[in-house]
Amino acid sequence: MNGADILCETLLANGIDTCFANPGTSEMHFVAALDRQPRMRCVLGLSEGVVTGAADGYARMAGKPAVTLLHTGPGLANGLANLHNARRARSPMVNVVGDHATYHLQHDAPLTSDIEGLARPMSHWVGRITDAGDLRARTEAAIRAALTGAGGIATLILPADAAWSAAIGGTPTAIARPQPDPVDAGRVDAAARALANGLPTTILVTGTALRAGTLEVLDRIAQKTGARVMAQQANGRMQRGAGRVALDRVPYVIDQALDSFAQTAQLILIGAKAPVGFFAYPGKPGSMLPEGCSVIQMAGADADLPAAVEALAQAVGASPALPPRLAARQLPDLPGGALTPDVIALSLARLMPDEAIICDESVTSGRDFFRATYGAAPHDFLQLTGGAIGIGIPLATGAAVACPDRKVIGLQADGSGMYTLQGLWTQARENLDVVTIVFANRRYQILHGELKNVGAGQPGENARRMLDLDNPALDWVSLARGMGVEAARAETAEAFHDLLQAACRRKGPFLIEAVI
Amino acid sequence: MNGADILCETLLANGIDTCFANPGTSEMHFVAALDRQPRMRCVLGLSEGVVTGAADGYARMAGKPAVTLLHTGPGLANGLANLHNARRARSPMVNVVGDHATYHLQHDAPLTSDIEGLARPMSHWVGRITDAGDLRARTEAAIRAALTGAGGIATLILPADAAWSAAIGGTPTAIARPQPDPVDAGRVDAAARALANGLPTTILVTGTALRAGTLEVLDRIAQKTGARVMAQQANGRMQRGAGRVALDRVPYVIDQALDSFAQTAQLILIGAKAPVGFFAYPGKPGSMLPEGCSVIQMAGADADLPAAVEALAQAVGASPALPPRLAARQLPDLPGGALTPDVIALSLARLMPDEAIICDESVTSGRDFFRATYGAAPHDFLQLTGGAIGIGIPLATGAAVACPDRKVIGLQADGSGMYTLQGLWTQARENLDVVTIVFANRRYQILHGELKNVGAGQPGENARRMLDLDNPALDWVSLARGMGVEAARAETAEAFHDLLQAACRRKGPFLIEAVI
Repeated sequence: MNGADILCETLLANGIDTCFANPGTSEMHFVAALDRQPRMRCVLGLSEGVVTGAADGYARMAGKPAVTLLHTGPGLANGLANLHNARRARSPMVNVVGDHATYHLQHDAPLTSDIEGLARPMSHWVGRITDAGDLRARTEAAIRAALTGAGGIATLILPADAAWSAAIGGTPTAIARPQPDPVDAGRVDAAARALANGLPTTILVTGTALRAGTLEVLDRIAQKTGARVMAQQANGRMQRGAGRVALDRVPYVIDQALDSFAQTAQLILIGAKAPVGFFAYPGKPGSMLPEGCSVIQMAGADADLPAAVEALAQAVGASPALPPRLAARQLPDLPGGALTPDVIALSLARLMPDEAIICDESVTSGRDFFRATYGAAPHDFLQLTGGAIGIGIPLATGAAVACPDRKVIGLQADGSGMYTLQGLWTQARENLDVVTIVFANRRYQILHGELKNVGAGQPGENARRMLDLDNPALDWVSLARGMGVEAARAETAEAFHDLLQAACRRKGPFLIEAVI
Repeated sequence: MNGADILCETLLANGIDTCFANPGTSEMHFVAALDRQPRMRCVLGLSEGVVTGAADGYARMAGKPAVTLLHTGPGLANGLANLHNARRARSPMVNVVGDHATYHLQHDAPLTSDIEGLARPMSHWVGRITDAGDLRARTEAAIRAALTGAGGIATLILPADAAWSAAIGGTPTAIARPQPDPVDAGRVDAAARALANGLPTTILVTGTALRAGTLEVLDRIAQKTGARVMAQQANGRMQRGAGRVALDRVPYVIDQALDSFAQTAQLILIGAKAPVGFFAYPGKPGSMLPEGCSVIQMAGADADLPAAVEALAQAVGASPALPPRLAARQLPDLPGGALTPDVIALSLARLMPDEAIICDESVTSGRDFFRATYGAAPHDFLQLTGGAIGIGIPLATGAAVACPDRKVIGLQADGSGMYTLQGLWTQARENLDVVTIVFANRRYQILHGELKNVGAGQPGENARRMLDLDNPALDWVSLARGMGVEAARAETAEAFHDLLQAACRRKGPFLIEAVI
């Protein structure tokens, strides 16, 4: 046994048995250790954005961390954007980043870089193993950080010589699992008192409060108190569809977000943050709340949110006997004719199977999906939480690894999809049950809107060259096939319905290029 | 005029007229400013690794910086690996990274991150514009940093409100260009004295010392003193081929590197660093120099290297009358049969046109190219300088933007190529004259070698799943076509020769998948 073996054993002893990886030379001893451990499932990503995005999707659905294996500073750097998203989603994750042997760093070899400096902005915890002596303790600290509160990004730097040195210490065992922050009875009382004062109130929630059972408790509170319950604009995972409580989200578009809070006099936060503009715009406010709106932080992101919601229900006297208002199943008719984003939304609302996992990086094109699917088959809805595009295909990949018996459907804008299209290969390699729907509008549509907001008028040559994805158009069918994923193009509503139906009936990866 | 206009004017006044970009909402005012400036050439990359890698290739061939446009912390993060390579190559570059409006940062909106923290490890200079008042001065400081010494990575953070505020100050003018470090006469004398002491000496060079004219001076020094002249293992740009001085490089493989210095008693560094192992290996040294080898740092990386070499020639009495030993043109016969890396090397040696620009990210597969092409058509040879894979396709893209009249040939390993294959689309969009040769061995071949070195024996299931790119094999012809680049596959030597010949005769992007 060497240090790498102990690292591997420590992960496995704590139930971390899935490794999303893109290794390099400095990680070869860890690769050899993984090779001696068939209990660890190793999934290769052909760029590190795939690796970290897949680990995020896995964590959201498995409810536990995966480990990632990344090659020195540049390998970590390539994965940082999706770590940013995972950090915002509070997905637990342990990143193992290989580095040169400790004694080699003095030579400033070509790949040497400040790994801690790179890791810190996107990690909740960063640590470096110094030698085989502290390897197990540092690894356990990383796992503890990943499991703390709602979940954390733990980045553990593994020098090559710590990996290859003889192991120290006995057989690893599971660490004591950190407990979430306890429910604060005083804050629950404050929220309950506010709910009794008759003022228009919004309860804003996220995280584990968005699971079906807790949503039912929230709905009882709403019925009892008249408060409105809403989800944050972006959430790591939300359960919705027929038989579940229908919940709205804070809109992305700033004027709509401002409108949605115009009548709110008090805001109760359960795991969520007070709503702010996604971007700043000249002359518009940063906070989405009206002047004078009071904010009650009932439970922070790291609290036991289902318990907090239960406590609030009890405090306001929302009886368990009160039946929650559940969405009835509503299957829309399939429209024909031109293929548009709302046709795609209706098609999904009708055709997606029960318990599908929807990974949404559709940006502008997918905004119709949410409102079309309150009564669709029950599903999990996973969003882009940090605004760093390029998560969609990896997120779907990781969710499918976590839930092999469920259909994963990726709603994928074409511009964002190009960031990490390499993830399609992993879907093929692992034969994952993912249908990717590419909304091929052949432009960064959101930026056209924003350029207009800036008052720049009609885009000229330079702006068009930066905002349009045409000339040449991307051929997603070829791209997918190049990575071993079957694919087809739809240019009409009818063709899309046929393809989606076929894709939902089969198993394995499939891509539909929806030309809209 | 607003701040973004002044930024644009300041860049243009300093001859920076090419912008590699992937913008987002916070950069819309800068996009609008670029749109008002047809003198600025804007080139879109579909991921930021393409953007920064292309800016590197541009800088190496244009001899001046491009500007990059990146979207907040995650956009910068995606480009960091190729900034790492550019930093090692000492390529001048100005990165403009958009951020939220200053007053919006307090809200910790989803895309907020520590941009300075992310930028610092891969930048020589990091600065933040605070408002329209210091916009011009900060921009000039960034340009100055990029032009200092051999070249620097300058990262300038542009808050959205500084971009949209009314401009302050008059019309921008060119800054005084920083001068390289002067030649240190004392160090030149020390080197000259060492060259006279009869000990076996290696002169190690890089940077602008690798241009054809300076190589001739170096060869006169070698002839006069008996010293050996060598280039660093990896160099940003090296001129070579028929009619030029043939120069060897320090080998990548550690045992070969150690052998190559075994007889060296003293080492003179001109712009170069003393050779070290690319990675650490158990039981092997970090320095490639034998015990007791003395090192004379004659000129640092930021010195005027051609002037330093001239001064050394004068000091040792290497007369300009002495004719340099120039490589004769040698065109090998084209072998038939199986397609192997050395067949590809010979094919290139015979068929590549005069003044081709070779962008080498072939990793293991391209090692034959260097020794096969001492007598090939004169060419520039651009290498992976920082070991962060994913530079090849972007580097070729940027070099082709800089030199529209020269053929660019990318030697591309398949594993590395997958990191930034999105760059092919930019080649199609800009109709760049690039031939990409993908060495399709369908594995991370270098890691197979390293795993063997580790003593892990035959790779098992987990190792194979992390080191092989098969099951399914990547279809590079489909991938290229999906991005609008014509492509074909070669599986025999004859087919490869035909495709390379055809690709060299035509203009515009083309990809050859060489199945080896």
